[in-house]
Amino acid sequence: MQNRTIIENVTPEIDGGKYYIKRVIGEKVDVTADIFSDGHDALRTSLLYKLDTDKVWQEVAFKEHPNDVWTASFTVEKQGFYVYKIEAWVDHLLNWLKGFRKKHADGQDMRVELQIGSSFLRKTAEIHGKSKAKQLTQLAKSLETEAYESAVQLVLGADLAQLVEQFPMKQFETTYDKNLRVRVGRELELFSAWYELFPRSTSPESGRSGTFKDVERLLPRIQEMGFDVLYMPPIHPIGKLNRKGKNNSTTAEADEPGSPWAIGSEVGGHKAVEPTLGTLKDYKHLIVEAKKLDIEIAFDLAFQCAPDHPYIKEHPEWFLWRPDGTIAYAENPPKKYQDIVPINFETEDWRYLWDELLSVVQFWCEAGVTIFRVDNPHTKPFRFWDWLIAEIQRDFPDTMFLAEAFTRPKIMAALAKGGYTQSYTYYTWRNTRRELEEYLTELSQTESREYFRPNFWPNTPDILAYELMGAGSNMFALRYLMAATLSSNYGVYGASYEFLENTGNPVTGKEEYYDSEKYIIRNYDWNARNRLTDLYTRVNRIRKENKALQTTWNIHFTRTDNEQLMSYVKLSEDETNVIWCIASFDVHNKQAGWIEVPKKLLGIEGRVNLKVTDLLSNETYFWFNDWNFVELNPAKYPIHIFKVEKN
Amino acid sequence: MQNRTIIENVTPEIDGGKYYIKRVIGEKVDVTADIFSDGHDALRTSLLYKLDTDKVWQEVAFKEHPNDVWTASFTVEKQGFYVYKIEAWVDHLLNWLKGFRKKHADGQDMRVELQIGSSFLRKTAEIHGKSKAKQLTQLAKSLETEAYESAVQLVLGADLAQLVEQFPMKQFETTYDKNLRVRVGRELELFSAWYELFPRSTSPESGRSGTFKDVERLLPRIQEMGFDVLYMPPIHPIGKLNRKGKNNSTTAEADEPGSPWAIGSEVGGHKAVEPTLGTLKDYKHLIVEAKKLDIEIAFDLAFQCAPDHPYIKEHPEWFLWRPDGTIAYAENPPKKYQDIVPINFETEDWRYLWDELLSVVQFWCEAGVTIFRVDNPHTKPFRFWDWLIAEIQRDFPDTMFLAEAFTRPKIMAALAKGGYTQSYTYYTWRNTRRELEEYLTELSQTESREYFRPNFWPNTPDILAYELMGAGSNMFALRYLMAATLSSNYGVYGASYEFLENTGNPVTGKEEYYDSEKYIIRNYDWNARNRLTDLYTRVNRIRKENKALQTTWNIHFTRTDNEQLMSYVKLSEDETNVIWCIASFDVHNKQAGWIEVPKKLLGIEGRVNLKVTDLLSNETYFWFNDWNFVELNPAKYPIHIFKVEKN
Repeated sequence: MQNRTIIENVTPEIDGGKYYIKRVIGEKVDVTADIFSDGHDALRTSLLYKLDTDKVWQEVAFKEHPNDVWTASFTVEKQGFYVYKIEAWVDHLLNWLKGFRKKHADGQDMRVELQIGSSFLRKTAEIHGKSKAKQLTQLAKSLETEAYESAVQLVLGADLAQLVEQFPMKQFETTYDKNLRVRVGRELELFSAWYELFPRSTSPESGRSGTFKDVERLLPRIQEMGFDVLYMPPIHPIGKLNRKGKNNSTTAEADEPGSPWAIGSEVGGHKAVEPTLGTLKDYKHLIVEAKKLDIEIAFDLAFQCAPDHPYIKEHPEWFLWRPDGTIAYAENPPKKYQDIVPINFETEDWRYLWDELLSVVQFWCEAGVTIFRVDNPHTKPFRFWDWLIAEIQRDFPDTMFLAEAFTRPKIMAALAKGGYTQSYTYYTWRNTRRELEEYLTELSQTESREYFRPNFWPNTPDILAYELMGAGSNMFALRYLMAATLSSNYGVYGASYEFLENTGNPVTGKEEYYDSEKYIIRNYDWNARNRLTDLYTRVNRIRKENKALQTTWNIHFTRTDNEQLMSYVKLSEDETNVIWCIASFDVHNKQAGWIEVPKKLLGIEGRVNLKVTDLLSNETYFWFNDWNFVELNPAKYPIHIFKVEKN
Repeated sequence: MQNRTIIENVTPEIDGGKYYIKRVIGEKVDVTADIFSDGHDALRTSLLYKLDTDKVWQEVAFKEHPNDVWTASFTVEKQGFYVYKIEAWVDHLLNWLKGFRKKHADGQDMRVELQIGSSFLRKTAEIHGKSKAKQLTQLAKSLETEAYESAVQLVLGADLAQLVEQFPMKQFETTYDKNLRVRVGRELELFSAWYELFPRSTSPESGRSGTFKDVERLLPRIQEMGFDVLYMPPIHPIGKLNRKGKNNSTTAEADEPGSPWAIGSEVGGHKAVEPTLGTLKDYKHLIVEAKKLDIEIAFDLAFQCAPDHPYIKEHPEWFLWRPDGTIAYAENPPKKYQDIVPINFETEDWRYLWDELLSVVQFWCEAGVTIFRVDNPHTKPFRFWDWLIAEIQRDFPDTMFLAEAFTRPKIMAALAKGGYTQSYTYYTWRNTRRELEEYLTELSQTESREYFRPNFWPNTPDILAYELMGAGSNMFALRYLMAATLSSNYGVYGASYEFLENTGNPVTGKEEYYDSEKYIIRNYDWNARNRLTDLYTRVNRIRKENKALQTTWNIHFTRTDNEQLMSYVKLSEDETNVIWCIASFDVHNKQAGWIEVPKKLLGIEGRVNLKVTDLLSNETYFWFNDWNFVELNPAKYPIHIFKVEKN
């Protein structure tokens, strides 16, 4: 055991390599490690990486920092899995060169050192293969044959230094290899704008359910607003037994449609389509038509059953039966969800159950679905998802999964580690400057960033945030604009938000919509446009035109002198695109204040000289000072989205 | 795969279980983990531990904290290796009981729940074996046969709750098992006072070298001062080739003794004894005599060779030869250590080298040595030490190793992880209140605490700290008293310190002794006593009488209103012994100030009523307020060591 180096404290490394980290094509992986050896000899360190199907490793040298910290990076360029590992070794050739310089500077006689150097050069040439490293052998010869002074100058010269750099004397290396993996996905995984609607609410005529055909007619509107993903609640037959009525009533009138999440009836289950929406063929047609407009359809995967779902008769062993012959409701005592029963994942028949549920996802993948929004994944076992997502992505690598888990932080993290592409977040309840700065810092600056991709939603059919309840369009605009600029992935329960629905449920007093669309068919005037329609359109275009808004990891909060103003700067990785947002939390009054130019971040030395253009208002300002004045009028735009250019 | 729980973020866990943690007999291991499951069901969690040679695991339940954090502890009672692991599962019996209570409170009919409960009780009885869990079966019967109301009351009663606690319904459990190990050592590993002397300086007559016999005569003096460990520099034959003279001179006069760390001559090497000190038999006799006085002899293990060490002829392949036929000196360019050559651990013959060096340590273990102070371990490979220490401690489990590595933090940590029992520290250079508070917090409150046991030395033969250079006895007293009360392990290069040697080397200007004992024979008046002699004696007695000073992990810094005063409180684990130290950094003037009673730490609710006795001055004070006045006179005692008693 002649290896002398220690490699430890490696990041990224999630739970000892148990989970992979996530990137999209073109992103960097920054690797950090503590690397050291006994004694005083010079070390060299390599980061090795490759697509797991490649044979050859790429190699990049680490950079040394104080306290034995080393860093190196690589950029992922192809979809699939990358692997990376680290090598470190005492490099006697490099060590000799460093010692030579010091001893020479100390005035020592270098004759023996020249002999040692030539032998190290020859040995290094052997390591690399003599033909590849001919220059080393030539140099060794020169050290042996040249006159003393000129041989010394050869060692001190740039050519030798460059060769030592190029040809490591790698022996007795330590390898750190914990199966560290990166899953590289397509760009949409990190940069997406989601629009949610209930297909049954898309009918142009009041009184009948909307259909997939009606949704198709709305596609140009959605495309014009600039959304990439159209997400619809479950499209399966809705259960009739225990169907819920308006406002979560436990009894439904005969004509009430029920909740789309109460899946399954005698018409069919998770592979069937609710007849009032159309046919499977219609759904597939919708997917194809949407794709033509660069819109992908997100499918709602909700693994739960209405009491009349066919599974219950076909697979009674997958449910938890009570001694009175009923099935246990889904419950969180004393709360009950009477219109659905949960699947019992502890069933002895779990292998068949998993296979059946996998076949459901495969069925919809084959129908053309590329995105799954998963309902309450945190009420199903983590290991089931780890397995299912890996199985699906192996055969359908473009498939994305959004975890709808609004729950405790470690559970949300565990789902993300297990493979979820994106995750709903606490954004919905982060309202103050401090809350948002802390939350974004946690999401973008901690280990979370390696596996948890936030998707910011100001509202969902389940959640009318207190902040929006009874609020006017200024607040709707603010919460929307922050979601779309803080996070590169965002979504909105769209029409409801666009048309400023703000009525909470006065009976429960909770963050719920009154007359929630979950239990009724709604009619919208899809021809109308308003302030929010315009904001959607404008902001999605701004996001597409500015690379800085296409990632969440690059956010920097900067100083303001007014607590009501939050300032954040985002730079594209190549630093050619700089977006500077200033949001005002006061949705009733104008707010003004001074904001500091982050000179170091922007690479400004000396005087400030910036041109900033507000991409919402199209106003341009020229800033020549370290602190500059801004004013926000919430009735116009509660946020500045400045594009920053250096003059 | 029916298991639903996740166990992660486990501490202590050093580098994924690669290294063990350390304890002494009687210490606690506090285990923390994030544990959670999908859904809302009740979890149970067990910490399992055992001596690795035991068959049966001990089991203790975790306590739940917010944010899915769970904690549990166990106490190690025997020397050897303990192992620990974690189990967690959804406990349906417990979950049923919790749900029962909520639903009952909600006014629901409990008939079906009673039936479910009885079936869970029967199933749990099966898990535990019907004879062991008879009570569960009886209870199940009662639930089935009693009238409704009395059955409900049975479920809500204390007996059932107690049984549910006692008999977990363990199934589909997740096990976290990364070979997590604890090495449990004897008490001396954590609580020791070291005294260093050069045996050749122990002669009562000037002009001749001291011997092991002379050291024996000093043992009663060392015992009286209360030291546990007597550490002597290497006792091997000193090389004659390139021997160093007074003050590190590269040429020695004929009568100069040389540095004991330049090991080996034609007389012998690492298994031989320097003839002027006596014989191997004398050394063994010294060990035996010392042990009678509860003093252990620490052996200096320095794996390096004088140029005339026998290894060089016998094993030329273990050294790095230069093209001119010389061996490379030990060097840190441009510095050279001309009187020693390093062993080349990269030799192809490393297997034989390792075995020979192991045999050296075995030789001294068999001679009775129980403690090794290892010279410059950081210039030998980490993996060599990991192996050597494990090999030795397997056969000689009482053996301790102190790492003399004054180097970068991660290197010192790596040696400790690899098995070193104790480590020298940066205490020698931590002089201000902030430095000491930060350093002690790092040592005692971070992961370091699990494997790195500090040993605080105010001086060593290599280091006369600038703080002590030219300083008077007040500073010597302060630095000694802080070492002995901040850290449960401390040492002192004793006679030199006791007799206030404070003359630095004016030529080098470095933190070195002038006329260093490393190169000369010194004569001390071993009959003299002074202020330091008294302090040694008093402080070692105080440490032995107060359990709070016998560990380093229990330190709490508390508030003072004077930056010159540092206040720290230590509690024994059972909280029966409380020591409160206040140190003044001003060694020239009196300093006074107010110190705050840490009421929460001391468990004081309401009014303060404390009796504090200074164990140095024997003065007693009664404190009735939250803040109390103290005054320190450095000419008397620069530290208060208060024993705190609640009235």
